[in-house]
Amino acid sequence: MAERNFDALVVTGPAIDNPAMYYLANGARVGEGTVLIRKRGESPLLIVSPFERDEAAKSGLPVINDNKYGWLDILNEEHGHRLRAAVREWEAIFADLGVRGMVALYGREEQGRTMALVEEFNARRNGVQLVGEFADTVFEAAWTTKGPEEVERIRSVGARTVTVVGNTAEFLSSHRAAKGVLVKRDGSPLTIGDVKREIRRWELELGLEDPEGVIFAIGRDAGVPHSQGEDDEPIALGKTIVFDIFPREAGGGYYFDFTRTWCLDFAPPQVEKAYRDVMDTFEALLAGMKMNDLCRIHQLRTCQLLEDRGHPTRCSNHNTTKGYFGSLGHGIGLSVHERPYFSEYEGNPDAIAPGCVVTIEPGLYYPDDGGFGIRIEDCLWMNPATGRLETLADYSKELVLPVKGRKSRVTSGKEKSQLLRAKSSKRTAKRKRARA
Amino acid sequence: MAERNFDALVVTGPAIDNPAMYYLANGARVGEGTVLIRKRGESPLLIVSPFERDEAAKSGLPVINDNKYGWLDILNEEHGHRLRAAVREWEAIFADLGVRGMVALYGREEQGRTMALVEEFNARRNGVQLVGEFADTVFEAAWTTKGPEEVERIRSVGARTVTVVGNTAEFLSSHRAAKGVLVKRDGSPLTIGDVKREIRRWELELGLEDPEGVIFAIGRDAGVPHSQGEDDEPIALGKTIVFDIFPREAGGGYYFDFTRTWCLDFAPPQVEKAYRDVMDTFEALLAGMKMNDLCRIHQLRTCQLLEDRGHPTRCSNHNTTKGYFGSLGHGIGLSVHERPYFSEYEGNPDAIAPGCVVTIEPGLYYPDDGGFGIRIEDCLWMNPATGRLETLADYSKELVLPVKGRKSRVTSGKEKSQLLRAKSSKRTAKRKRARA
Repeated sequence: MAERNFDALVVTGPAIDNPAMYYLANGARVGEGTVLIRKRGESPLLIVSPFERDEAAKSGLPVINDNKYGWLDILNEEHGHRLRAAVREWEAIFADLGVRGMVALYGREEQGRTMALVEEFNARRNGVQLVGEFADTVFEAAWTTKGPEEVERIRSVGARTVTVVGNTAEFLSSHRAAKGVLVKRDGSPLTIGDVKREIRRWELELGLEDPEGVIFAIGRDAGVPHSQGEDDEPIALGKTIVFDIFPREAGGGYYFDFTRTWCLDFAPPQVEKAYRDVMDTFEALLAGMKMNDLCRIHQLRTCQLLEDRGHPTRCSNHNTTKGYFGSLGHGIGLSVHERPYFSEYEGNPDAIAPGCVVTIEPGLYYPDDGGFGIRIEDCLWMNPATGRLETLADYSKELVLPVKGRKSRVTSGKEKSQLLRAKSSKRTAKRKRARA
Repeated sequence: MAERNFDALVVTGPAIDNPAMYYLANGARVGEGTVLIRKRGESPLLIVSPFERDEAAKSGLPVINDNKYGWLDILNEEHGHRLRAAVREWEAIFADLGVRGMVALYGREEQGRTMALVEEFNARRNGVQLVGEFADTVFEAAWTTKGPEEVERIRSVGARTVTVVGNTAEFLSSHRAAKGVLVKRDGSPLTIGDVKREIRRWELELGLEDPEGVIFAIGRDAGVPHSQGEDDEPIALGKTIVFDIFPREAGGGYYFDFTRTWCLDFAPPQVEKAYRDVMDTFEALLAGMKMNDLCRIHQLRTCQLLEDRGHPTRCSNHNTTKGYFGSLGHGIGLSVHERPYFSEYEGNPDAIAPGCVVTIEPGLYYPDDGGFGIRIEDCLWMNPATGRLETLADYSKELVLPVKGRKSRVTSGKEKSQLLRAKSSKRTAKRKRARA
């Protein structure tokens, strides 16, 4: 705060879906209308409705009941003009707490409301100037690296996430197939909706929630990175399934983000080839990532590796919507996507800093030519003590999942994926030797 | 828009927890970075990342891939200065779509980011002035009344909500008591955490989610309106339980909001008296509410009715934190709390308009003197065809819940609550006759 010349920072809004409030209020479940104020060099305090006083106290911060500032009296004095009354309430709060000077405002709110309030507030002579940060905010700086307790919370969400992923793989494999799709005991097709219901049940049991949904997209849909999949679609053999799961601690908190690509029973040659290309890229990247590397270098390297294997990428064509056209990864924490960003633009200063938690998620997307998509995503922590990237939740990267009662083709699929794994272990071993 | 002199409106952000985007994008699951633009007199269109193009198309709106505007090229030209690049991207979008003049901005976003962006944008001569609305926004006006389809969606959430409430009552009543608390089969105390886990399971099965949690608060905690209850607390007999549940459609959408107060096995005389006061108030209010009534009149009436029965209220003391100190109700829709508001301030223009959906939730809170709280809340629709308030989900308002194996005291509790119900039915009958 000092280097930015802020005399105080103010966060408003509920704790839910509002990382700045969640973070400074230590996860207390405060509701809409909450105001958190931190003067430079002091601890934060909370101003809440008396309805919320007990939940607010769980933050461990001092709590002020907002009726102290006389909202109803002010509203009456202002003849019900809510904007003028809101400005006067802010002034009353700042005067009471001795807040003066440059005050930075944070928190997810209705932006039009903020614009109107700030314009009216800053037009008055009240000794306070409200300002906003666009990028490189105080919070972004704090969140780019994680403390040990944060890493353990993310690791725990990761362990539970891969439990859900494992349950899902077993659930799929426990079904028989008929006419090229998985079927239930009564012979009707198993659908994506059925699978998602199970996923949510497991998440619930494990203390997770998925406010932003879950991607379980098949075939052509898997070729459009954020398509979530159609609930009524059956689950076909031999098509890619992109399963991207990004749950967080139930009730708000830290996220995880994890993707596997599966083919049931067998994978077509075109898919196997592309899968190997993604896996090779993934492993080459991890083998080469060093502490404090600029993220953009690895995005450029991803493009290079995939172009070498014949795929279009966004580095040579910013507008492509096939091949590789995403960003290699992102930081993760109280938001699914946060800094560091891996975008390749020239001035991108983000690095794999000691203590950062990032996802690495190369992918290839061919919705039309082939109707498939592939993405592999792990969450990794740059351990500041060792200078190495550690995978926060391990899980098999086998492409082909067996299907009940279909031995011959499974074996073929398995052989190929075992080959893939053998290759990958060899490479890991080599990497380990190289580091030793 | 015309009466406000806006040439266009722009909504930004993901659909999740962002009612303005959800509403205009027809519930499509678009992600962060989405921009929706509606020029005056035209239909809206969506600008999204190519990752999101299929989810965006589910809105039924025209979709533009945002790579058309060359974000990476602009960023490179601006040497990585994200704020300047963002302003230039906005300018490119507005120029492409022919947006000029006064443009109102909506959507839940990091407010500091918006402040910085708007300041930079509006300082340039680009033919567009970004403005924000503080209150009485275009969206508030649209949401204050609901169309038939919205009412049916809320009604459906309501039917599922009371199913969960009924399951919860049965679940509690199916337990035996020992040493004054409910116990599980193994003799250990049933806790609030156990009950909430069941509640979430039922919600999941019924296609509901509770992003803002659920209030299941006992005794003293029930006396602080928004205390959610402590997971490890056992469930004592003879204490008030405030059970306030506000789920929404799974995946985002319409909310419901519903509260019952229960005492297991028996209610102390002090609680019974206060419960009767709340119930009498509730019924008197409903009997008196007419279409187009100002909401504040009913808030004032609530204070009067409860003061007549000897309770402190916020109308005579704005700072009280016991007795009645909330607002009588609120509109509900894509947010749990929206207009109309029932606050008593002089200029409050909100009315029980034809087609509005509101909650009515009188309560009494005595956390310290007595250690209890009481709240009764239903969701009601002002049917424009009949001019009558209709309850969207009916459920018993019995105070005492029986406990397995404790007949004598239950009967006494039941008798009293039957009395209460008889009184209430008589009153309903009388009201019906009066209307006929």
